Amino acid sequence: MTQHAQLQTTGAENFTATVGMVGAGQLAQMTQRAAIDLGVHLGVLAHGHDDPGVIAGATAQFGAVDDLGALTTFAHSYPVVTFDHELVPPEHLAALSAAGATFRPSASALKFAQDKLYARTQLRDLGIAVPAFMRLDTPDAVDAAIAAFGENLVIKAATGGYDGRGVVFTHGAEEAKAVQATAGNWFAEPRLGLAMEVAVLSARRPSGEMAIYPVIETVQIDGILVELVMPARIDEAMAAAAVALAKQIITAIDAVGTIAVELFITTDGALVLNELALRPHNSGHVTLEATVTSQFHNHLRAVLDWPLGAVSMNAPYAATVNLIGGKTPVVLADALPQALSDGQVHVHWYNKAWRPGRKLGHVTVLGDTADEALTRARAAATILNGTTVA
Amino acid sequence: MTQHAQLQTTGAENFTATVGMVGAGQLAQMTQRAAIDLGVHLGVLAHGHDDPGVIAGATAQFGAVDDLGALTTFAHSYPVVTFDHELVPPEHLAALSAAGATFRPSASALKFAQDKLYARTQLRDLGIAVPAFMRLDTPDAVDAAIAAFGENLVIKAATGGYDGRGVVFTHGAEEAKAVQATAGNWFAEPRLGLAMEVAVLSARRPSGEMAIYPVIETVQIDGILVELVMPARIDEAMAAAAVALAKQIITAIDAVGTIAVELFITTDGALVLNELALRPHNSGHVTLEATVTSQFHNHLRAVLDWPLGAVSMNAPYAATVNLIGGKTPVVLADALPQALSDGQVHVHWYNKAWRPGRKLGHVTVLGDTADEALTRARAAATILNGTTVA
Repeated sequence: MTQHAQLQTTGAENFTATVGMVGAGQLAQMTQRAAIDLGVHLGVLAHGHDDPGVIAGATAQFGAVDDLGALTTFAHSYPVVTFDHELVPPEHLAALSAAGATFRPSASALKFAQDKLYARTQLRDLGIAVPAFMRLDTPDAVDAAIAAFGENLVIKAATGGYDGRGVVFTHGAEEAKAVQATAGNWFAEPRLGLAMEVAVLSARRPSGEMAIYPVIETVQIDGILVELVMPARIDEAMAAAAVALAKQIITAIDAVGTIAVELFITTDGALVLNELALRPHNSGHVTLEATVTSQFHNHLRAVLDWPLGAVSMNAPYAATVNLIGGKTPVVLADALPQALSDGQVHVHWYNKAWRPGRKLGHVTVLGDTADEALTRARAAATILNGTTVA
Repeated sequence: MTQHAQLQTTGAENFTATVGMVGAGQLAQMTQRAAIDLGVHLGVLAHGHDDPGVIAGATAQFGAVDDLGALTTFAHSYPVVTFDHELVPPEHLAALSAAGATFRPSASALKFAQDKLYARTQLRDLGIAVPAFMRLDTPDAVDAAIAAFGENLVIKAATGGYDGRGVVFTHGAEEAKAVQATAGNWFAEPRLGLAMEVAVLSARRPSGEMAIYPVIETVQIDGILVELVMPARIDEAMAAAAVALAKQIITAIDAVGTIAVELFITTDGALVLNELALRPHNSGHVTLEATVTSQFHNHLRAVLDWPLGAVSMNAPYAATVNLIGGKTPVVLADALPQALSDGQVHVHWYNKAWRPGRKLGHVTVLGDTADEALTRARAAATILNGTTVA
């Protein structure tokens, strides 16, 4: 009620536009930063007062994203609604869309990020190169997958996974069957030999206008993004192929807003889809400083159907290292000034409570070489994590 | 009360630091943007819910800055207090400082921005080059000023002026005496032939560490900043002299936080002090995109006594053009997308109600040349102002 009262008194006529975002994590926090620049009024559907997006000052409604009532009230409060995460029941989105709510991305596009099995099936049927996969709906399917892909499988949950959850690497039928027996909409993929993981970050308007950022090289450990370099250290032909594949996918699924297409580059040089995010993405945090327009600004511009901003780089290279909760919390009052003693270091802190393995922030450094940027960003992150990075 | 309740529930232990800012205009708005990045909790002493800093999400207390009660409550709520403007009664600041409040800048340093006559007198006594000036406490003093400086005077109010208010250009004794007769702590300066106005923007920590931005070339019309170019198109020797003068002043007055030293370059090549701002300054808005660290980030870092960020540029040139309310308000829903159709354009909108002559936002463009950046920024500003700029 408090927040509603505030909304009514903040002179909405002085905003340039109004956008609702389901979820209020760090993506909403950084979107609020972009909303301030553009004069946009950002509302969030939040869990509580401690959510980073609420702390950052977005106007909050409070409720669970799987509560149709809360979602309905929220969707009816904003002319356009977008997402901080994709953990929203698709049936709720479909029902609200049918009732006139405007979701960007649409419920049907978002499904490609919500359900990996759906995405692979649909994209394969559209003629797009996806990795081999097999649904593990029975124990027998595990034997079939091993026969097709070999003893070592990657077993993934079609829905609900993030930051490495819902991805299991198995060795042999016994392990694989143990996973298959647990609750979950599992499917299997062959274990690929990876040369690099990359993300193609882009923004797309409802009209189809698209902006594609320089390809980002990402390093993931246990499924959590640890660090990245922009642009990826790959040859031009590979970068062009990655961009072409991403464009094909984005257009095929009619995505709107910021989209991250995460790709594997295998040791034999093949490009293979990993997963899609239809929202600002961790790999794109680097754009806050590295490019003319950040992914958060372009996300707002895209969902408002405004022209997109330039995505060229402000420096030859940029590196971002995530701040991930270590075994014990650091004393920020000491660590932050120490990290900032390198004047090139940009620290982004998410105001989240410390927990081992939790993403608490990130650090970005621009530089003339990838090594320079990465070395400095790692040094700052090591101070802020309290443990050595990479 | 609402805002207090919010503060208590936002998990203050997850902030990196806490800063209070007296005032909640666009400087507080853009400081909130920097506070989000750094995980800093920013509180503002605001007039009302429509203040840009409140809309941006800073935690607000409401009260008038000349209300000692409101100021006392605010100052006691924050471990360090800084300023969005200098229109705070010096006697209140002195009393609160004596009672243990921490102001950065200090009440005694801030006085150099609050009282131009005090600043000139003190700086002259410290051996720093200031323009000739004469206090106009009597009609006879006007005759003395004309005898010393000539028929054409610049008459300034020692206190309370901003954006061109409190500065009058007079021709002859009659006009000058008419101004002198009005309420105001007036003083006179000679009318200088100006080649250029420049601002030396810097940040300084309590420890004395200082960061000086590239000199900014400003264009003012009727005392309002209209546009600027960074770096100023002056030779190296002139830039070095401007920086040296600014350093001397900043050190002499023991300024802390972001400081703008506005200087005149006369047609005969002399550097003359215009005025001081001991806070983020309109001329520094360009740093949001143009430099590694913005003036708002460095203001927070300085008042928290954290190491300052690098102030080198992200491009050879940058230009900022202010958005100033024209005779009629523009239709933002049309104008903003049109302005953004140049993907290099950064729009900052302050969420303020339109009023002719009011600063409503600004536009920044980076470029390889000053002309390119300025031309593109002017084109966008012309669309958003609804009238031709410069």
